[in-house]
Order: sequence, then structure tokens, then C-alpha cells
Amino acid sequence: MYQNATIGLVSVSDRASTGVYEDKGLPALKEWLTGGLHNPLDFVDRLIPDEQGLIEATLKELAETCCLVLTTGGTGPAPRDVTPEATLAVADKVLPGFGEQMRAVSLKYVPTAILSRQVGVVRGHCLILNLPGQPKAIRETLDGVFAAVPYCIDLIGGPYLETRPEVVQAFRPKSAQRPASGA
Amino acid sequence: MYQNATIGLVSVSDRASTGVYEDKGLPALKEWLTGGLHNPLDFVDRLIPDEQGLIEATLKELAETCCLVLTTGGTGPAPRDVTPEATLAVADKVLPGFGEQMRAVSLKYVPTAILSRQVGVVRGHCLILNLPGQPKAIRETLDGVFAAVPYCIDLIGGPYLETRPEVVQAFRPKSAQRPASGA
Amino acid sequence: MYQNATIGLVSVSDRASTGVYEDKGLPALKEWLTGGLHNPLDFVDRLIPDEQGLIEATLKELAETCCLVLTTGGTGPAPRDVTPEATLAVADKVLPGFGEQMRAVSLKYVPTAILSRQVGVVRGHCLILNLPGQPKAIRETLDGVFAAVPYCIDLIGGPYLETRPEVVQAFRPKSAQRPASGA
Repeated sequence: MYQNATIGLVSVSDRASTGVYEDKGLPALKEWLTGGLHNPLDFVDRLIPDEQGLIEATLKELAETCCLVLTTGGTGPAPRDVTPEATLAVADKVLPGFGEQMRAVSLKYVPTAILSRQVGVVRGHCLILNLPGQPKAIRETLDGVFAAVPYCIDLIGGPYLETRPEVVQAFRPKSAQRPASGA
Repeated sequence: MYQNATIGLVSVSDRASTGVYEDKGLPALKEWLTGGLHNPLDFVDRLIPDEQGLIEATLKELAETCCLVLTTGGTGPAPRDVTPEATLAVADKVLPGFGEQMRAVSLKYVPTAILSRQVGVVRGHCLILNLPGQPKAIRETLDGVFAAVPYCIDLIGGPYLETRPEVVQAFRPKSAQRPASGA
Repeated sequence: MYQNATIGLVSVSDRASTGVYEDKGLPALKEWLTGGLHNPLDFVDRLIPDEQGLIEATLKELAETCCLVLTTGGTGPAPRDVTPEATLAVADKVLPGFGEQMRAVSLKYVPTAILSRQVGVVRGHCLILNLPGQPKAIRETLDGVFAAVPYCIDLIGGPYLETRPEVVQAFRPKSAQRPASGA
């Protein structure tokens, strides 16, 4: 039996949260995760404006019950972009490799990936990752870094995530591997 | 018509600022920028010693009027190297991708690029980037990261920079592109 | 004559420090350094649990007499992993290039290298680097970044380290090179 996993999804956008345009971040995140994981997933969604205090409160709330929280949007250099600030403010530990590698992956597609300030952090038993705002960039980024996510969640005490190898192959050291639940 | 742009250039060096040797950073920066941009450029130069307080004051002053400030020198591990400390101290937002990518570019040329602590930050409407001290390394670094600079300056409310494609091709998402001024 | 060098080695592990399993980090570090350097080396070893205060105190003590301190272990995302926190707490300067490049090197071997939070810092005349826990990963990391270590130690006032080119080729700008001592 695959273990259940609760995953928080937070779309941060002034315009999408007020209905000026349609949010495309949350559907892109759900589609990728549903396709990439065998585990039954409970999603907790939030669509909020670029307000640092509100982002922090949302991340704190979701980290109580989620093993993974993915944000989309608000990571650029503009004054209203404060998702990384909010994420760092609620972090127990910062994992600089996620920011570095997400930018390195995106740089293969666009030179302006250098402008993204995305971070990855641990809060309690939850891994929080900032993803880009565009659906295409969301998919490229998850393709590029998700292999390390299941083992990270093991190490912070979350459920055992099992990936679909045609999408992404989770990597764990031998000592951390269990027999595949679907076998 | 290309928009005017005011660019600050700060050479940080105890020895060059006291005349012990000739500063080569400021001429290298000017030459690259003049060759790489179509916009009429007003340069504001400073040649100062490695004193953190003075570097901070200089950056604050230049950020009032400049859309871009480039520093050269003072980014290594030696005790007198304090340019990154000064830059971080005046930052509204840190853009870690610039430091990462400037080091990655320089690492193609010298293994000791790992020792550079260069950062990129936003202060108000100004992007501040720390460049290396050597003219050759300055050119290599600007070649490697400048494609993302014009769009960054758009996002923080500066002038629309237009690059000469034979030197560097600025990248902007379609929605941010304007017709070329020189056409 | 090659100059003497005193190097601190700190293995951080709850289990190894209480004898639950054998420490393999210190022997791997010694073997690599002895094979890679011509200089006569005095090693100062410590095997300690994952306690931040104790790691900080150990690093402070070793930095008094060592030009280089290498730690092994305690850099992951688990709650007990606090080696980077301790290292940053005693830092005079952080050298982000070391963390970035150590992760980039390890990423060639395992996707979970992204989870490592290793840092490199300067404290006084001492360079402190966090290495992974596994002997294989220790060797891969040192192979990947050590070329820049001797020049860094020059710049912070330490001894002139000379490497064995069949293991690693130290890089220094021409102006910093001296005639090889072994010639």
C-alpha cells in the first residue's frame, strides 16, 4: 500500500487572487504531482496576494499537516515579489541546493532564470519549495529537482513517497530504500 | 529613440585609490558597456579604498540616480575584501542567481573563481552587481550574465536597455518586449 | 623545503562519537590530504556528536592553530544535522562558491546532493570546509574543489600549500606563484 500524502499548494499572485486573470499555477502543480507520484494525494490549495505576512501565515498553517508545500509565483526582483522572504522567515533550515539547482535547470531554457530568488527550506516535518509562476517553468523545475524530494521527506519524518519512473526516478541511498509498494 | 541610462561604476581598491597602481577596472567596465548597449550612457565613476562604510555610502548615493551600479574589486577572501559585505548591507533584495552564475562563468576559466564572493542585489530602482577586479574577468562575467540585466531593470522600474546583439542578446519574455528603438 | 601545515579534522556524528559505528570520515580525510599535499602535515582530530555548541567550540579552538579545518558529517536536512549552522556561527566571511561547487560536484554522482547544506567559511587565518559523511563523497568533493584551497590559504595568511599534480593541481595567479619547493 502506498502511504497517503498531504501536499500544500500556494499560488501567490495579486492579480490571480483578485480574479484579474486565471490562476494557472495550481492546476500545473496538481497535474505534475498526480502524474509523478504513486501515493494517494490530498491537496490543500491556497490562492493569495503578494503580501508577506499572509504568505508566512499560510506556510505556517500548511506546514502543520503537509509533508510538502509548493509555492508558485512571487520570486522575481520586483518590489511586490516577496515569496522567498516569507519562506525564509518561516524556515527551520535552508537548503541552498534547491535554489541553486532550480535556477540552473531554468537557465537551460531562459537567461532570465538568473533573476529568480526561489528557495527551498524545511519547517518542522515539511519541505517548502518556491517554484516559478509559469506552468512550463513549473514542469521543467519539478522534472529537474524532484528526484531528491522523497529522500528529503524521509529525513524530516514524512511519508514514503514513491515516484513513477517514467516521470521522475526518486533517488535514495540503498540503506533508505524499501520494497516498492506497487509490486 | 533609445532611452538615456545613468550607470554607476565603483572601483574598490586600496592600492588603485592611493595611486600605487593604475586602476584598470573602470576603463574595462566602460568599454564593455559602451560596446554592448545602444542606449546613450551617463557614467558616474568612483575610485575608493576597501573601506566598508565608504563603499556602502557610495552605493547608496549612486543608487539614487543610477539604474545599474557595477563594482569591481574587493570580493575575495582576504581580510580587506569587503565589497560583498557593503553591497549586502545596502540591499533591499538579494538576487542569489547573479553570484552563482558569475562564479559558474568564471570557473570555466580559473578554479579559484570559487573564492569570489560576488553578489547581485536590488536597492530601490537600482541593480548593483559585484564584478571581479581583472579586466579579462570583467568581460567574461558581463558576457555571461548581462542577457538578464535589461529585463531585471525593467522589473524594478528603470529605463529600457537595448543591447547590441553582436555583443550580448538581452532576453525578455514576449509580453515585456517593445519594438527596437533603432529600427 | 615545504612548509609545515596544521590541519584540523572534525567528524560530526552522534553514532560514531558514541561508538555505535566506526568513524570512516577521519581516515578518508587523512588519506586524501596525505596523498594530495607535499607539505608535512600535523593533523588535529576531533570526533564529536551533532551538538551545535560543541561543534562551534571545536571549530573556534582548531581555527586558532590550523590553516584548514575540514568537517565531515551533519550537513543534511534532518533535525540533528547542524554542522553548517555551527560553521556559519563562527565565520568571519562566508565563501558561497564552496557550497555551490561542492554540491555541483556531488550532483554528478547522486541527485540527493542537492540536500547537502555544506558551506565554506573563513575564520581568522583558517579556512573551514564542510564535507559529506561518506568516504567516497569526501574524495569526490576534495577532487572537485581543492585546486582553489591553497591560494585561499595564501590570501588569509597561512602556509604555502603545494599539491601533488597527479592528485590535484593547485591554481594560483602568476603573481602568487613561488618556485616549487621540491625542485
